[in-house]
Amino acid sequence: MSTDVAALTPAEARARFRDGLHVPTSGWCAGYAQANLIIVPKDYAFDTLLFAQRNPKPCPILGVLDAGETTGPLLRGGDIRTDLPAYTVYRDGELVETVTDLSEHWRDDLVTFIVGCSFTFEAPLLQAGIPIAHIDQGCNVPMYRTSIRCESAGRMAGPMVVSMRPIPATRVSDAVRITSRYPAVHGAPVHVGDPSRIGISDLSRPNFGEPVTVPDGTIPVFWACGVTPQAAVMESRPPIAFGHAPGCMLITDAADTDYLIP
Amino acid sequence: MSTDVAALTPAEARARFRDGLHVPTSGWCAGYAQANLIIVPKDYAFDTLLFAQRNPKPCPILGVLDAGETTGPLLRGGDIRTDLPAYTVYRDGELVETVTDLSEHWRDDLVTFIVGCSFTFEAPLLQAGIPIAHIDQGCNVPMYRTSIRCESAGRMAGPMVVSMRPIPATRVSDAVRITSRYPAVHGAPVHVGDPSRIGISDLSRPNFGEPVTVPDGTIPVFWACGVTPQAAVMESRPPIAFGHAPGCMLITDAADTDYLIP
Repeated sequence: MSTDVAALTPAEARARFRDGLHVPTSGWCAGYAQANLIIVPKDYAFDTLLFAQRNPKPCPILGVLDAGETTGPLLRGGDIRTDLPAYTVYRDGELVETVTDLSEHWRDDLVTFIVGCSFTFEAPLLQAGIPIAHIDQGCNVPMYRTSIRCESAGRMAGPMVVSMRPIPATRVSDAVRITSRYPAVHGAPVHVGDPSRIGISDLSRPNFGEPVTVPDGTIPVFWACGVTPQAAVMESRPPIAFGHAPGCMLITDAADTDYLIP
Repeated sequence: MSTDVAALTPAEARARFRDGLHVPTSGWCAGYAQANLIIVPKDYAFDTLLFAQRNPKPCPILGVLDAGETTGPLLRGGDIRTDLPAYTVYRDGELVETVTDLSEHWRDDLVTFIVGCSFTFEAPLLQAGIPIAHIDQGCNVPMYRTSIRCESAGRMAGPMVVSMRPIPATRVSDAVRITSRYPAVHGAPVHVGDPSRIGISDLSRPNFGEPVTVPDGTIPVFWACGVTPQAAVMESRPPIAFGHAPGCMLITDAADTDYLIP
């Protein structure tokens, strides 16, 4: 399998995941937007949508599938239950399982929220010559629960989760400038530098994903992360909920540039 | 009453409206964001929020008050039932009344959506030397139902409503550039020029607000308008709903610049 995954179309990538391939999607399908998932019963849908509206940096909504719907314009011809590499299953807020197929868990009252992902702006960062450590190191991006509280909405409350990329000190302002133009996929960083200021005690022990080595001359830069709704599910304990496995995203048919602001 | 209304604070303006003053708010409280209202029963709240999410140009959400709540951070110390110049009352989608106080209609299951308003970007347009015809002519802004369909959400569906400002032909690109930096208050225009292309047959007969004279050398420019959720209420016929009277906005404590993107 020496395929250049960056050159695949979203439909080709989704077909591989549907067939059971389970890998992180960073670097796949260059030029296409990637997305987080959060799936909740209809009874929790208003609280979840309002939570997203009140916390647009971690939870930028790209699309919502109506109750029971399994496809939509962001994944034409696809199936939200099978087309990601892996999914998390939460019962009463506990992560009980990670699966590669949600079909046997599906219910007609499930509402799917498709949430922007920072993998989307990695292509423009790379184009600008800014290195992405987790791509260079061949691992998943590290993600951390922080001490930053999200604004709550009804029964949904929780901490902000962030992703971290070590950025060369001379390129931090470029990274801010470039990512700020993509607010629908988390936009500008929420924190630059000292991890302890946002409640992260040890960079080498992320809560999700994998640790990266922080190269000399770089500084850790933190972006709001679309795993945040899953952290809210863990705290808010709806009877059932599903997410993407962190780092294993929905690859959408939308172009990165669809989310570029002027 | 020769007060310079542009110099009032939002709290001062809201107090005047609470006391019964009923006038359009364009030009009031320079530097502060103005907002549209749509208020629906909890049972319609998810459909309404999803309608807004799917139609961000006409329905940019600035805030949501929980069911029964009558105040919030956008109107500190205020009361959403009394602090606007006037409100519309819809029963089964019919506009049955315009009132200056919603108190006697209030119910504990009512959810209030505060939606961005294009009056917010009139201050930066004026600062750039772009004239605003309805301010110069001392009337309300003209608003029109268009042939552009919004994306529907559950039971909520309807046409896009737009506001129109005649802009000097040499300044249209400046007006686009300036307003595009305020996506939370409708952003860039949705249409420039021929009104018939978006289903407006007669500029002198707006569906809401008042007609303006289109001065020589100007071209009509159309921005998405926060009366759009009220047009959806008229079509979708929830048992009860309320809005602001078109042009008579909530003046919020948020600064215009809070909604300025980089």
